[in-house]
Amino acid sequence: MLLRTLREEPAEAEVPSHRLLLRAGYIRRAAPGGYTWLPLGKLVLDRVTQIVREEMAAIGGQEVAFPALLPREVYDISGRWSEYGDDLFKLKDRRGSDFLLAPTHEELFALLVQDMTSSYRDYPLVLFQVQTKYRDEARPRAGLLRGREFLMKDSYSFDLTDEGLAEAYDRHRVAYQKIFERLGLEHTIVAAMSGAMGGSASEEFLAAAEVGEDTFVGCTKCDYAANTEAVVTPVPSSDGRTHGPLTVHDTPATPTIASLVELANSRALEGRTDWTAADTLKNVVVTVHHPGKDNELLVIGVPGDREVDLKRLDASLAPATATMFDDFTARPDLVRGYIGPQSLAVRYLADPRVAPGTAWLTGANEAGRHATSVVAGRDFTPDGTIEAAEVRAGDPCAQCGEGELTIRRGIELAHIFQLGRKYTDAFKVDVLGANGKPVRPTMGSYGIGVSRAVAAIAEQHHDERGILWPDAVAPADVHVIGAGKDGQIEAALHLATDLETHGLRVLVDDRPQLSAGVKFTDSELIGIRRIVVVGRRFAEGWVEVRDRRTGERRDVPLTEVAQTLAG
Amino acid sequence: MLLRTLREEPAEAEVPSHRLLLRAGYIRRAAPGGYTWLPLGKLVLDRVTQIVREEMAAIGGQEVAFPALLPREVYDISGRWSEYGDDLFKLKDRRGSDFLLAPTHEELFALLVQDMTSSYRDYPLVLFQVQTKYRDEARPRAGLLRGREFLMKDSYSFDLTDEGLAEAYDRHRVAYQKIFERLGLEHTIVAAMSGAMGGSASEEFLAAAEVGEDTFVGCTKCDYAANTEAVVTPVPSSDGRTHGPLTVHDTPATPTIASLVELANSRALEGRTDWTAADTLKNVVVTVHHPGKDNELLVIGVPGDREVDLKRLDASLAPATATMFDDFTARPDLVRGYIGPQSLAVRYLADPRVAPGTAWLTGANEAGRHATSVVAGRDFTPDGTIEAAEVRAGDPCAQCGEGELTIRRGIELAHIFQLGRKYTDAFKVDVLGANGKPVRPTMGSYGIGVSRAVAAIAEQHHDERGILWPDAVAPADVHVIGAGKDGQIEAALHLATDLETHGLRVLVDDRPQLSAGVKFTDSELIGIRRIVVVGRRFAEGWVEVRDRRTGERRDVPLTEVAQTLAG
Repeated sequence: MLLRTLREEPAEAEVPSHRLLLRAGYIRRAAPGGYTWLPLGKLVLDRVTQIVREEMAAIGGQEVAFPALLPREVYDISGRWSEYGDDLFKLKDRRGSDFLLAPTHEELFALLVQDMTSSYRDYPLVLFQVQTKYRDEARPRAGLLRGREFLMKDSYSFDLTDEGLAEAYDRHRVAYQKIFERLGLEHTIVAAMSGAMGGSASEEFLAAAEVGEDTFVGCTKCDYAANTEAVVTPVPSSDGRTHGPLTVHDTPATPTIASLVELANSRALEGRTDWTAADTLKNVVVTVHHPGKDNELLVIGVPGDREVDLKRLDASLAPATATMFDDFTARPDLVRGYIGPQSLAVRYLADPRVAPGTAWLTGANEAGRHATSVVAGRDFTPDGTIEAAEVRAGDPCAQCGEGELTIRRGIELAHIFQLGRKYTDAFKVDVLGANGKPVRPTMGSYGIGVSRAVAAIAEQHHDERGILWPDAVAPADVHVIGAGKDGQIEAALHLATDLETHGLRVLVDDRPQLSAGVKFTDSELIGIRRIVVVGRRFAEGWVEVRDRRTGERRDVPLTEVAQTLAG
Repeated sequence: MLLRTLREEPAEAEVPSHRLLLRAGYIRRAAPGGYTWLPLGKLVLDRVTQIVREEMAAIGGQEVAFPALLPREVYDISGRWSEYGDDLFKLKDRRGSDFLLAPTHEELFALLVQDMTSSYRDYPLVLFQVQTKYRDEARPRAGLLRGREFLMKDSYSFDLTDEGLAEAYDRHRVAYQKIFERLGLEHTIVAAMSGAMGGSASEEFLAAAEVGEDTFVGCTKCDYAANTEAVVTPVPSSDGRTHGPLTVHDTPATPTIASLVELANSRALEGRTDWTAADTLKNVVVTVHHPGKDNELLVIGVPGDREVDLKRLDASLAPATATMFDDFTARPDLVRGYIGPQSLAVRYLADPRVAPGTAWLTGANEAGRHATSVVAGRDFTPDGTIEAAEVRAGDPCAQCGEGELTIRRGIELAHIFQLGRKYTDAFKVDVLGANGKPVRPTMGSYGIGVSRAVAAIAEQHHDERGILWPDAVAPADVHVIGAGKDGQIEAALHLATDLETHGLRVLVDDRPQLSAGVKFTDSELIGIRRIVVVGRRFAEGWVEVRDRRTGERRDVPLTEVAQTLAG
């Protein structure tokens, strides 16, 4: 076995799974965001893939395989050629034609179904593939957790009714729960945004992990769970209060919320000295980049005690993206630090907390001046609401209205979407219905990050000495160590062969030049649960069987090892 | 099962395998040179892949998986970034860095071995992967036979001695023979050129097929076999004749060999009237494109009865390529139609038949003039020999010197190379030898076109009604047809379930809307050997078992079907 463990911590590794998979010889870096699966790693990857395949087959999924290198045309029709932005690897062939490395295959599956089906009798249909995917990540990181080339299982359901889609979605949801259970992955299903994929309902499967890139919320009272990007802010009920007239105040040198609040209290504006940042309305100017179209200026209004969360903002604007605007000299009408929503010349979207009837301390659109009692719906009317403000632990839950939100970090394992007819509309896919009239199929799309799942497992199953693979995905059932003296290595090889005839998959350490101590350390790093040591008591007919997880060790007669392990 | 057979011949299909795989619903075109594997096709592809994996494991191969998207740097070090030319898909990431879609992975495997091994104890080593490969073919054609995205098994051997490399090469050779035997592929192993891969000895496995792109020769007397590109021309033994002096003749209006021969005979040059094209020396000007360097003019001398074979020329010049030169106005020293090898200002390479002492009728480097008794080694000395002349059936065999060459067409199934140290030199890979001194591993590289093999099987195993899969790769063991009346479809589904419990993989045709005749035709097109028809005698407890290959049909009691088929 081509295996070399590393003593030192690899400099490139930032998170435990990455560090351990490198050190234990499962993977190696081959490109920015591209990893090689070494023999041990390939075994784990294949086992994970097999579990995914089995559960997809169990819900009637049929496996296909599409090319990854695709011509631009179909992604132009769906709009994703431009919507996907810089994340898409684009290239030209020798004739100068545009191609892409497909991030997912909604377009091609819709076209396949158009080609291969003609009647309601061909439905429902679930197709899937396990395929290498490409995404030009701006910041590939954490090894397999965020790569530019990765293995993904993507499946697509096709139904003729919305109820059929809902059922296919539920079947995938259940299949995914089974898959992650079999993989030993603790996970939470959370409400998610659909992003560039389009469609309506969507959920993510997140594995709780400190190193996860996603944050998600739970509720202390109910079962609400959502990706932070998808958290819905409860609209405060109006308290029916009436507010005095909008009043403009001189507020020199108060371009920040903190300086404004301090001044408001020191001057006792409107007779109050209890002003807090939450009473202020902060107006943030951003440039919105609409794919394939002109940029747009946008002002976002959020309560002054909260920041704009750019990930939440992007999720709300998708497929457009936003960047902070800072060229205020070009726009004298936008008075930096003193912007108010009254009489703005650009589009204005407000946080749901800026509900009709709420009154705010905000800019007066003149340098050094702010206004009080600026009432939403009276003094200004936003062009819409937007979920862009940061989510905080302790925020009220929108679902039950009673609990508070808790926040955790997680790794996105899977994403399921009820796409609806976005893609079948784009390609005008119609089949003959039972009533003789054409009917347009509705579509779901479901993805599992297969290579990422391997890292997530290592992230959830390790200790300071190494990985602790769940049995279902371990590279072998037994790790046999020839401790190194008096024919123990030969004996280990014999034992390995014997165990294999009992149907066990065996990794054997027969390296003569290494000490028993090094081999023990390596076996803990590699992380196969059952370790058999052919050592000093071998001459008397005994070997030691260790359990990597419990640390239990016991001597077993050589004649009974196979039985003990197979049991 | 997502399956739709096509009645009509698909317009895009040029060769039988392509036509049948499309018609029977195994594949669909998704991109220029890119094919989708439909459910039936994926089953066949997986079986072929599994056979390849098993035989690679049997010779100690360890499976790994590299990224396909790789940074330019390592391919610059080996020189292949430029040597591969337009066949390489190149792209830039969002930061503008150069990447490629790897055609093969010699560089990365050499680097992996450098990283993972340090001592002679780690050798010998065989690593392999089954991976999607990319090649920007100028003319993708014939479906899976020449695509731009295809599945390949590539393996790499690492040894410390030349003998070790020869053994690893032989083990691969034997393993490949076993693989193609199991796949039912008749094949010939032929001497091959190494091309851009570098290295010394190399052979190809060719499946005899009329539609093959490669032509290869055999000998009527001995076991010589070679790709036409690699055919060695026997050097004629000198007959010791002495020739008269070089004589220049006026030969107006004889720019072609035919016109020259006609004039030579009518004028009885040198007193002869038996001049043939074989007595003339044709000098062809080509532009040689050296990757990453300036172009070069080159004149190739071949007997006038033979054309220059551009494929053979390219193979001889690799990694450079050649195109015909036609800008003679820019080179007045090259007198079109009247070029001779005497006093040429550009490099001159001659066919091996232009051996020292042979005399030729050739151009005199003046318009309208030719020379006789132009003797190689006396009147001109080529800068070297080159294998560029066409090979013809009936040419003498260079190996035995007795037989004649026969020519056949074939599909390249596999290519094996003894690379030597080209790549380990490029990356300075050294490990500690047994004697304490550093030793540089030597490398072999071995590839099988896995997706192409599927097409080659269909090419060798079909008749006018459809495919005839060998059992080892068929998408199922049994094709059960519910003929369509009186509960026969339900019975077919029951029978299928029953057969599956007997370990048989079953494809069942339960399409209620189709006639029995359509189903029979489809089953012949799909090409699973054993077909069970649940038809009119089902009510009496009988089904019909057909053999797709022999055409044999017999009625079998329902109770005995499983036994009959499992036997």
